[in-house]
Amino acid sequence: MTNTQVTLVQIDNYGPWTVTPEPRREADLQTLQSRLYADISQFVGARDGYVFFTRFDNMIAVTNGLGVDDHALLQESIGNRYPVTLSLGVATDPSPVTALSNATASIQEAGSAQDNDRREILDGDVLAEGDRTDDDVQIAHFDVNDATGEYTDELNAFDSFIEIEQGYAELMRYMRTAHGSLSFFVGGDNIIAVCPDLEATDYHDAIAHVEETVDVALKVGVGRARNAQVAGMAAKHALEVCREDGSRVELEW
Amino acid sequence: MTNTQVTLVQIDNYGPWTVTPEPRREADLQTLQSRLYADISQFVGARDGYVFFTRFDNMIAVTNGLGVDDHALLQESIGNRYPVTLSLGVATDPSPVTALSNATASIQEAGSAQDNDRREILDGDVLAEGDRTDDDVQIAHFDVNDATGEYTDELNAFDSFIEIEQGYAELMRYMRTAHGSLSFFVGGDNIIAVCPDLEATDYHDAIAHVEETVDVALKVGVGRARNAQVAGMAAKHALEVCREDGSRVELEW
Amino acid sequence: MTNTQVTLVQIDNYGPWTVTPEPRREADLQTLQSRLYADISQFVGARDGYVFFTRFDNMIAVTNGLGVDDHALLQESIGNRYPVTLSLGVATDPSPVTALSNATASIQEAGSAQDNDRREILDGDVLAEGDRTDDDVQIAHFDVNDATGEYTDELNAFDSFIEIEQGYAELMRYMRTAHGSLSFFVGGDNIIAVCPDLEATDYHDAIAHVEETVDVALKVGVGRARNAQVAGMAAKHALEVCREDGSRVELEW
Amino acid sequence: MTNTQVTLVQIDNYGPWTVTPEPRREADLQTLQSRLYADISQFVGARDGYVFFTRFDNMIAVTNGLGVDDHALLQESIGNRYPVTLSLGVATDPSPVTALSNATASIQEAGSAQDNDRREILDGDVLAEGDRTDDDVQIAHFDVNDATGEYTDELNAFDSFIEIEQGYAELMRYMRTAHGSLSFFVGGDNIIAVCPDLEATDYHDAIAHVEETVDVALKVGVGRARNAQVAGMAAKHALEVCREDGSRVELEW
Repeated sequence: MTNTQVTLVQIDNYGPWTVTPEPRREADLQTLQSRLYADISQFVGARDGYVFFTRFDNMIAVTNGLGVDDHALLQESIGNRYPVTLSLGVATDPSPVTALSNATASIQEAGSAQDNDRREILDGDVLAEGDRTDDDVQIAHFDVNDATGEYTDELNAFDSFIEIEQGYAELMRYMRTAHGSLSFFVGGDNIIAVCPDLEATDYHDAIAHVEETVDVALKVGVGRARNAQVAGMAAKHALEVCREDGSRVELEW
Repeated sequence: MTNTQVTLVQIDNYGPWTVTPEPRREADLQTLQSRLYADISQFVGARDGYVFFTRFDNMIAVTNGLGVDDHALLQESIGNRYPVTLSLGVATDPSPVTALSNATASIQEAGSAQDNDRREILDGDVLAEGDRTDDDVQIAHFDVNDATGEYTDELNAFDSFIEIEQGYAELMRYMRTAHGSLSFFVGGDNIIAVCPDLEATDYHDAIAHVEETVDVALKVGVGRARNAQVAGMAAKHALEVCREDGSRVELEW
Repeated sequence: MTNTQVTLVQIDNYGPWTVTPEPRREADLQTLQSRLYADISQFVGARDGYVFFTRFDNMIAVTNGLGVDDHALLQESIGNRYPVTLSLGVATDPSPVTALSNATASIQEAGSAQDNDRREILDGDVLAEGDRTDDDVQIAHFDVNDATGEYTDELNAFDSFIEIEQGYAELMRYMRTAHGSLSFFVGGDNIIAVCPDLEATDYHDAIAHVEETVDVALKVGVGRARNAQVAGMAAKHALEVCREDGSRVELEW
Repeated sequence: MTNTQVTLVQIDNYGPWTVTPEPRREADLQTLQSRLYADISQFVGARDGYVFFTRFDNMIAVTNGLGVDDHALLQESIGNRYPVTLSLGVATDPSPVTALSNATASIQEAGSAQDNDRREILDGDVLAEGDRTDDDVQIAHFDVNDATGEYTDELNAFDSFIEIEQGYAELMRYMRTAHGSLSFFVGGDNIIAVCPDLEATDYHDAIAHVEETVDVALKVGVGRARNAQVAGMAAKHALEVCREDGSRVELEW
């Protein structure tokens, strides 16, 4: 059974900061957000977690293996190097969306995202080392079948993006509603979903649903492990098998 | 009349590189992509353009004011500092999507995005300095009404994201189909659209369409100028007027 | 005759900030400093200037070609993305050290480097576009003869560094005292000197002085141009000629 | 007794790369080097080590607490994100310079720093977890007495730098020769020395030597611990005591 530790990373009071005293240059905000995300990705990734940029001001991470000290160090280090600070909420549950709900609640209870006095919250519980198992994290890595041949080399770059974005929007809703999974666009034609214990048939159904609804053909490799990096790497290898064999769903375990 | 110069930034042969010889760590790919975007954002932004991360392997920029030399320097500088290279296509048209189509075509004609021998293409035409006017770029900056109160402080962080993502997906399609506009999610609850000559009524219609279709309430500030930075800053100021006055559409010109 | 525009970049009140309220983690300070330098290097370098990290809290740049607006944009962009701010002083003179003295004075007159109320000074004068010539900047690029064979592959990495550092310390003093040049270690075994109008014999003398005094053998390529980038690239090409021909001083003009 | 684990980080074949096929823009090289250092500093620092930029192409790190896996991950992550690769040599010894000599040797034995076929060496031995003690690392953090009042606010920025550089050059040689310590300039007026078991009298002697030889007045705080971060933070606190009390040497243990 999965047991996903999820961390919500929220920039404190970010919206008001971006327009105080005057609206700041958009290019600087974009640079700040994407570099902040890159730093968090390196920090979490080097500890075998995954972090997704999501809305940039609210990022979602799978952090099995990261303890309270790790979270505190991330918070301190960002506070030392950026003009903004982070609040972090952590929770664990067999259902990824339940874990995230609890992680979110622990930040929300401390105050609004736009409360200037609510700073650097670090709350919630991490999974005890002794409770961790090799099935805790299930990662599904989707991509679009022949996206380069069908879209990138054929359509203009925005219409290609619309196709991929449609596939993503439909998949994210379906996986959330049907399974409590959290799905994230990660660039190119790739979507990574953090899932509970799902079977091959669940993935076949998801792919069929997206194809029927918005006519975007996906395939998926799935892995599981005690952390996101190992589960995700297994998923990538499984996806390579799909590419070689022409299959649509491959589980590697 | 608008005359938008659009640059397509495409990472050469990126998909194959990410899995050669083995799939690379996801955290490193995420870091690489977001830092590459950040660098391009600084470069383009310091010359008063806007660049959007889009799919990260294909980014779309509004580059009125950047010449061929600027594009060549960007290409050289990234090639010196990253393990990947960039191809750049540039075109100008009153319709943003037409400009992008032409910019895309100039890269596509040189080879596939996954052709290992197609490297560092720089093609297309920039707008001559003498042909530039103060109406060349129209930027619309949308956000979600009370996103913090309605979503961020109320729902879990993924369900908040789904709401905003739905609003974005609907708006991007509508603006593309109805007007040839290019709309980009830029973090938080913000969407920036690169538009042709639109009127207030066009924006009211777009907002009404999104609200009716997916029940997400947007507002928008719009600016125009000879480059994206000045038009975008006017749009931000107009959006501040919406916030103060409770209006849904404000044009600043 | 040279006419070097020099900018002093000083982090405002940096020392006190690093220990307030408690000393900050050294790794974070090192990261902050080196990334700040990298960003300034990209900004100045993309406008064909050179910037040297020097003490990191006080960096020295050759900025021929950068106007007041460029300086203001750099200041604004850093202020938007870092927890610290910059003061900038600019001056031009045939003598690099005189230019720097005047640039420094324009910041010093506004207050102490550790005055918490002195923020984001931007003062001094830039060289008018019409006054610029192709001889304004002379750049000398030195390296250590066979540093890899003599030091890197033979000594431990600190003793190699001591040798190179000794060569640098002696050269920097000599060039400053004899010629008012500003010399900077730029990594590896490389030193870049910003010089007034010097002749080949001056460089032979400098190299002989360093070899006699600390027994470190240097060679040098020298270029001149209307900006640092072009002069510096000419110097690099001249240094390649030294490598091929075994010569010690090559001027490329 | 100290037992310092030292890692030599060497960029593979960097010199030739910087001029192939043509010399690369200096600003790009400076950006690449300083960002590479920043990333290594974050990686090592988050594991409670210290890394010094030294020559940038050869960086020296104190890595007590980092295992072989940590080193391998750093190597892989940099290889995924930069156009250059790293070789790493690790060794431990009561004498910092002996540790570094052994770390250097393990890389040198694999080939020259400019051998194009020598790539991503990872060699040497890490200190077993069971052998670590609370006295393994001794860090001394020096700064210049009233550097702002004496130099920064009085002299031009290069002459200030010469003074500080002179103090550093003299201290680095003295500490290396007398004690086998490794001293690094870390920006501003700060020097950090990695030391064997030294006493207060050793530091008084070092300070006296520098003051007599080059007339630069230093003070120092010293800490020791099982890793560089904790030892270095104790040293910073001790240096704050110097500032408050006017003392020249403070040991915190």
